[in-house]
Amino acid sequence: MLVDASWEEVQTGLLKHSRLLAGESISILEAAGRVSSEDLIADSDLPACNQSAVDGYAVADESPTGKGQYYITGHLDLGEISPLALKPGQAMGVLTGGNLPLGGRAVVPHEKVEIQNHYLRSREVIKPGNNIKPAGEDYVKGSQLLSRGSVLTPGDIGLLAAYGKTSVTVSRKPRVAVLCLSKHVVPWQSLPEPGQIRDSNGPLLSALVLQDGGLPISIKNVSKTETSVKTVAAELLEQADILIMTGGTYAEGGNEARRLMEQLGAEIIYWDVPVQPGSHTGASVRNSQLLFALSGNPAACAVGYQLFVAPVLRAMQG
Amino acid sequence: MLVDASWEEVQTGLLKHSRLLAGESISILEAAGRVSSEDLIADSDLPACNQSAVDGYAVADESPTGKGQYYITGHLDLGEISPLALKPGQAMGVLTGGNLPLGGRAVVPHEKVEIQNHYLRSREVIKPGNNIKPAGEDYVKGSQLLSRGSVLTPGDIGLLAAYGKTSVTVSRKPRVAVLCLSKHVVPWQSLPEPGQIRDSNGPLLSALVLQDGGLPISIKNVSKTETSVKTVAAELLEQADILIMTGGTYAEGGNEARRLMEQLGAEIIYWDVPVQPGSHTGASVRNSQLLFALSGNPAACAVGYQLFVAPVLRAMQG
Repeated sequence: MLVDASWEEVQTGLLKHSRLLAGESISILEAAGRVSSEDLIADSDLPACNQSAVDGYAVADESPTGKGQYYITGHLDLGEISPLALKPGQAMGVLTGGNLPLGGRAVVPHEKVEIQNHYLRSREVIKPGNNIKPAGEDYVKGSQLLSRGSVLTPGDIGLLAAYGKTSVTVSRKPRVAVLCLSKHVVPWQSLPEPGQIRDSNGPLLSALVLQDGGLPISIKNVSKTETSVKTVAAELLEQADILIMTGGTYAEGGNEARRLMEQLGAEIIYWDVPVQPGSHTGASVRNSQLLFALSGNPAACAVGYQLFVAPVLRAMQG
Repeated sequence: MLVDASWEEVQTGLLKHSRLLAGESISILEAAGRVSSEDLIADSDLPACNQSAVDGYAVADESPTGKGQYYITGHLDLGEISPLALKPGQAMGVLTGGNLPLGGRAVVPHEKVEIQNHYLRSREVIKPGNNIKPAGEDYVKGSQLLSRGSVLTPGDIGLLAAYGKTSVTVSRKPRVAVLCLSKHVVPWQSLPEPGQIRDSNGPLLSALVLQDGGLPISIKNVSKTETSVKTVAAELLEQADILIMTGGTYAEGGNEARRLMEQLGAEIIYWDVPVQPGSHTGASVRNSQLLFALSGNPAACAVGYQLFVAPVLRAMQG
């Protein structure tokens, strides 16, 4: 257990207990912002074939002067494949992103040619490879498209689509439950009686968890529960990766959060950290689940979340 | 129609056609990141009553020296209401965030008192209001909690919960459909034939739309459609606020995107903008729906989206 530790030491200690969650396969259309849990390798070149980089004319060879005259054998539409290979002295119209005819060794942009009677003359020197986007220029077969642990951007989603991937394996979202231990705090949907206040920490934490890629699964209050607090907490831990308790963390009040963790058989990782607000805070681990105790004061609760829970949530996703 | 306009002028022109979408009521638990479409006014003070700001003792008055001796009449737990008002010379134990007993005019922190036989003596000068958090210190009844058009933060969600709000009215998400007009481009789930490529723009745009708070509702390709392109586009416009077409934007290829917009009776707002990549782009308006034509090249498509679609998506949400 960390005693008299700084919040930086506590963060480091917590990350040692943060296991990486298993992956789940989801549609690429829902995957932006999620964390890839696989390395993805290109199974083919992208583009698959040599393409024209401009609208213009593919030519078969350079002429002796580099500015030769070519017979135009036809035009290729986007997606069309030339049935015949270009021979020396021949040219074929091509479009940006369109396939090159076999034998095409350079492309002359349409604004650089003069055309007369099916013959074109280039106004610029033609060099092999000019204005050709070669197969594999974006990605060569066998190169890495995605690395495990990277956050998927919209650009990554487009790349996955270009490779025909319909799904991708991403880290499962950490499931987080919140349990409010303050007996004078009622659920936010309830009408408080005199002396009671509504729970704002449950919705606050739920929004923060969503923002950090977690899945809030439950917000419970002990004020209205008829079963024991230990039973409620144990039930939440059947589904949650992380349980955040708020309130009941101060020694003068009996430190219910810490007693509850001990009753649940959790091993305390740290307790109390010199930060203001929010010094009354702690965490424990139980079967690789993490239990946090944060102050019941909303500002202190938010500070404790950002310092201690948020880094763990992100680490669990990779 | 904007002719020879810069992309900044085009953005301004587009924003004039961007209507604010109607509001929808959603649970506060799902509202973080959404845009409030209402002003929300506090219907009571927060906190509702005077509270203690520390763990300590509420006292009824200042003694003549300011460091008097007080008889401790009892202790209030959090949420408890004192049945009796404090009289001069009396003190009562209180906790941080707990209600003050009636008649309590200051609180002495517990580390600043000496206690002997139910009497406490303060080691610091007591001034009225010391360590009291007065009713309404956070929000006074009638003050504004949220303003229309603001993006809801987790802190806002906590505040709504503290006021017992279970739902909030936010701008509806703009519904966006994508239609790929390039005939050699097949859906990304399909196996392309020689000369064809897979659609990466649909999934790319879908991820970008999600990131900007929109709702991607459909990705269609004309390559496999048996009905006319106009019919497909008209069907998408029955549900979408925004239709993004990709490909078919260049004059040499017949400018299918522009012809389609005209066939649909849409009024062209701009066409072609001097940006690289992505100069072949345009937009039109039809019954307050916006239709965009973006280049089919993925990089140019992403540029066109960021310059022209993203600002509109954000404006529609407030």
